Amino acid sequence: MPKFDDTFIEQFHELLAWRRDVRHFKTTPVDRQILEQICKFADMAPSVGNSQPWRFVQVSDAQKRVQIQQSFLKSNEQALQGYEGEQAALYAKLKLSGLKEAPEHFAVFCDEACSQGAGLGRQTMPETLAYSCVMAIYNFWLAARAFEIGVGWVSILDPVEVQEALQVPDSWKLVAYLCVGKDARPHDTPELERVGWQARTEAQKRFLLD
Amino acid sequence: MPKFDDTFIEQFHELLAWRRDVRHFKTTPVDRQILEQICKFADMAPSVGNSQPWRFVQVSDAQKRVQIQQSFLKSNEQALQGYEGEQAALYAKLKLSGLKEAPEHFAVFCDEACSQGAGLGRQTMPETLAYSCVMAIYNFWLAARAFEIGVGWVSILDPVEVQEALQVPDSWKLVAYLCVGKDARPHDTPELERVGWQARTEAQKRFLLD
Repeated sequence: MPKFDDTFIEQFHELLAWRRDVRHFKTTPVDRQILEQICKFADMAPSVGNSQPWRFVQVSDAQKRVQIQQSFLKSNEQALQGYEGEQAALYAKLKLSGLKEAPEHFAVFCDEACSQGAGLGRQTMPETLAYSCVMAIYNFWLAARAFEIGVGWVSILDPVEVQEALQVPDSWKLVAYLCVGKDARPHDTPELERVGWQARTEAQKRFLLD
Repeated sequence: MPKFDDTFIEQFHELLAWRRDVRHFKTTPVDRQILEQICKFADMAPSVGNSQPWRFVQVSDAQKRVQIQQSFLKSNEQALQGYEGEQAALYAKLKLSGLKEAPEHFAVFCDEACSQGAGLGRQTMPETLAYSCVMAIYNFWLAARAFEIGVGWVSILDPVEVQEALQVPDSWKLVAYLCVGKDARPHDTPELERVGWQARTEAQKRFLLD
């Protein structure tokens, strides 16, 4: 088994710290070979019973992209209605997706009917099938960052509208919609240092060690 | 923004390839400082609206561990009933958890009532809250491997029984139960090379590129 030295661990820490949710993209297409490499990393994720239920669908068709964009605008408008006063004003100012500019789009589905893995490990917690897809998506995200490609995860969408727009099988449930491309606004602070209403709180309440 | 060179990318690939679901543990406790470091990596995960809904609860109490073990045995017996013939025989032979030997246990919950993030990004896909926890768990898993600590994700459990055994708030939903410790059977092949009924299939069907 390989050993991982301090230098690697520090760089891995950097990778996690500098991964970010990108929302401003350059429109330049991403090299196909880079995309394929990133997909190979995604495919290395663990999965319950080794089911590998993730289905990454690249979305290049202009008409389909318009439908996704419309679902986003509608869902975002509805979300805005849920806020009031200052928070509503802040929410309205946020840029929450790069759907328009991002050169590459991927919809990621979980095939809930997938027979691989023979159901192993997912009788009492069937949600572990979708969780496996989340780890593939996170591999994709981290590998993309290592290859200097930004990823933005859009969740402000109606999953059924996305399924219908992309005409995927009924058993494919949307897990994430990813915008992918070069970051148009490379940052000089890591993602972790957020301020304001989305600031992080102390870790103590999240890790209860004996 | 830092750059990641080929050497790092190769090592990152190794890390993903050698992460595995560990089920045979040495009983030696894990150094507290190492555990804290691994938790710090876990806490760097992305989360919807920066909500950070993960709650890692270390389980050291012997009585609580017995309850978890009982839930596993019951759920595993039920799962076995779902298989027939050769598959049932194969299933019965699998060692699916290291609950008995693992020196450290962590239950990971998603706090569905967490107010941090003010609901941002999770109106149409509320499951993204649990997905955020999955990325924290995966960070924990990868960081542990880098620190030579093995992790096994146990999903053959009744989530409500775990919640009750650990007396956590009602809004905390179980995402994973982790066995943590030194691997008692270090392997000489990476996790990806599985054979038999859980073997991987070709990636083409999982990545539909245009």
